[in-house]
Amino acid sequence: MRFYDQLINESAPGAVQAVPATTTVPSSEYPRVYADGRATFRINLPLAKSVRLEGGQGLCPKPIPMTKDADGNWAVTLPPTVMGFHYYWFNVDGVRTNDPGSETFFGYNRETSGIELPDAQQISSDLVTAPVVPFYAPHKGSLQGQLHEHWYESAVTGQWRHYIVYTPPGYDDAANSATRYPVLYLQHGAGEDETGWSRQGGVNFIIDNAIQGISSSFFAASAAKAKQMIVVMDNGYATYKMGAGSESRDPYVNYLPASMRAGIEAFGDVMVKELIPRIDRTYRTITDRDHRAMAGLSMGGAQTLAVALPHLDMFSYIGTFSGAQFVTPRTSSGATPQPFDPKTSYGGVFSDAADFNSKVRLLWMGAGTAEMELSESLRVNAGKLRAANIRVAEFHTPGVAHEWQTWRICLNKFAPLLFQA
Amino acid sequence: MRFYDQLINESAPGAVQAVPATTTVPSSEYPRVYADGRATFRINLPLAKSVRLEGGQGLCPKPIPMTKDADGNWAVTLPPTVMGFHYYWFNVDGVRTNDPGSETFFGYNRETSGIELPDAQQISSDLVTAPVVPFYAPHKGSLQGQLHEHWYESAVTGQWRHYIVYTPPGYDDAANSATRYPVLYLQHGAGEDETGWSRQGGVNFIIDNAIQGISSSFFAASAAKAKQMIVVMDNGYATYKMGAGSESRDPYVNYLPASMRAGIEAFGDVMVKELIPRIDRTYRTITDRDHRAMAGLSMGGAQTLAVALPHLDMFSYIGTFSGAQFVTPRTSSGATPQPFDPKTSYGGVFSDAADFNSKVRLLWMGAGTAEMELSESLRVNAGKLRAANIRVAEFHTPGVAHEWQTWRICLNKFAPLLFQA
Repeated sequence: MRFYDQLINESAPGAVQAVPATTTVPSSEYPRVYADGRATFRINLPLAKSVRLEGGQGLCPKPIPMTKDADGNWAVTLPPTVMGFHYYWFNVDGVRTNDPGSETFFGYNRETSGIELPDAQQISSDLVTAPVVPFYAPHKGSLQGQLHEHWYESAVTGQWRHYIVYTPPGYDDAANSATRYPVLYLQHGAGEDETGWSRQGGVNFIIDNAIQGISSSFFAASAAKAKQMIVVMDNGYATYKMGAGSESRDPYVNYLPASMRAGIEAFGDVMVKELIPRIDRTYRTITDRDHRAMAGLSMGGAQTLAVALPHLDMFSYIGTFSGAQFVTPRTSSGATPQPFDPKTSYGGVFSDAADFNSKVRLLWMGAGTAEMELSESLRVNAGKLRAANIRVAEFHTPGVAHEWQTWRICLNKFAPLLFQA
Repeated sequence: MRFYDQLINESAPGAVQAVPATTTVPSSEYPRVYADGRATFRINLPLAKSVRLEGGQGLCPKPIPMTKDADGNWAVTLPPTVMGFHYYWFNVDGVRTNDPGSETFFGYNRETSGIELPDAQQISSDLVTAPVVPFYAPHKGSLQGQLHEHWYESAVTGQWRHYIVYTPPGYDDAANSATRYPVLYLQHGAGEDETGWSRQGGVNFIIDNAIQGISSSFFAASAAKAKQMIVVMDNGYATYKMGAGSESRDPYVNYLPASMRAGIEAFGDVMVKELIPRIDRTYRTITDRDHRAMAGLSMGGAQTLAVALPHLDMFSYIGTFSGAQFVTPRTSSGATPQPFDPKTSYGGVFSDAADFNSKVRLLWMGAGTAEMELSESLRVNAGKLRAANIRVAEFHTPGVAHEWQTWRICLNKFAPLLFQA
């Protein structure tokens, strides 16, 4: 459990500082990050013929060749790039392999190496006495919430399911024993799982800081204090148990493109029929629609629209982060893609703007400018919504791609807007 | 979140059944386990010259060559072996690499692939209608406790620390809001971290089942119901922050061999001065010594003796699982190893048997018979303790090695003995 401010404090001031990344396992010296924002990756593979660094868009948009020294160490040093969390792996003679020197994170449907890059200024030597702590790391003197892990046997799927719950600082204090809290349901992306928001995202520190109004001295800090809230993170995959379910029994599937339809019916049923009732039964929640939000990243954004829009009796705050927003609804033929049309798409939920605006206190949609297709579709479709008099918040973060830094920033901007009515 | 009983139920009965292991990631078909207890490992590496399977003692005591097919798939099928969790990895042309088809677990100071092997009978076809669920998996109809994750900035180390807490089923029910619980502090082994007991060990399911008296129809099930309890799992590594601490300020170090001394002083201070007070402040614990236990596996067993024996005012139940038990104490010269002597070792705490027996309600020490040195040292030293009239419970599990199945069994046997006085 290391964070850069402490690593830097332990380094000798003056010289160019290089420390193992906070995501580097304690037994390894690499990957390392430098005071000027560079990062060095290294792996010992004496017999390999070719080793390349590959990974998320923000780290290496295309494979980066590594070079071998006399001892069989393949290494590459990257120039300063987008700070925050990046997935990566090594391509060794054509085979994708993880870095034994790094923690792994569930992404791309498998365990994948990841690196947390500090901001270049964060580790510059003049900050040794006052290190900068980003909004997704804990701050000295701040209070920490906790994460809870739960298991249950789902009647919908016939399988055991696992979900994670964040409660804010003080939730368990005797003084708060009668306090009830609003709830944000927050979903991961495709290829990830329910651990994404806590392990890759730092959700607990983001909400801790947002609630306490702790501002970072750089980037995306929010001045507004977020309300105390509970955050629930479920696994986004579900299939009906054998013999149950049918394609026509539920509305969710109509809200998704063909590629994302598998499992959405069952997932919607899990959320609405099992998870939300369980949370309301086992946590001190406020159970009305004014105190329930749903948001998600990428596939989780599409799921958010698919689950929340048909259930505006249950949700009044909706967010999508790089979120396949305004995907093509299924047509009657099931085949032809259709552009988003506020009059008809999503079951026509946007066709009566006055009704929609009276129910939905916040429809918030964010993307990074470096994920250009999603950013552009957000511009186009938010424009259509505004033209149809739908109230929508549109947020574009400069320079970030389809990666966790975008989603951390989205959550940091979204959370303080929740439950303020 | 998959368990074998459900995977088997979904398979067609009759034919020889092969299913992906529960530790196989959802996107992969390998590793697979078979109805007769075999397991197949496979990885596609067309350019590799040599691939071997390596891993924990119970899975492959020595490297096992894999063979390549025309498509570049290297595979090996193991005969039935010790059920339960095993670490493993592939040795590819001399380089240790993880299996992209498998979950990873923190062990050997890095992320490491692991496989959960069912018992051969557990997946035999005649059990399709009544699958056998082991004591470390959830049972249909049983109640589940929860895990909690906490972070705090340690005054001892100057670093952020992360610990995990299990609370039993019903802990948060309104009906139990005045109920207080005893606490077991449970430590991982060397090279692992605070996630070991929940991810590799299944601690939550073991205690859930033990509390509910749910017996498995095979192996190591306990008939006695365990008391409701809280279990706390901390990270076993700690170093004093710069400028603090000294080698002589604390008693812990005298209880450990040289190889394990690093960090034990700071870890003991973290436990006694920070963690236990935090737990007693934030959970509904019973705070007296009669309701506090400590146990650990391997290095964690040595830490248990080093922390609990000098603090018998705080602990009355002590357990070591394959636990470096009765290690050589430091001599005055700091050099010469000494055999365990109940009169002098561990600060002489065993020298007054009547006093020790009146304070320690349970001293429990387990090992597997296949970890022969530890098993033998347990026999010898428990014999010395008995000869010195110390009450000690000695437990040897047949056929299991220095692996998680041993430690799961130890916990399953140990937990029902706690807090029964």
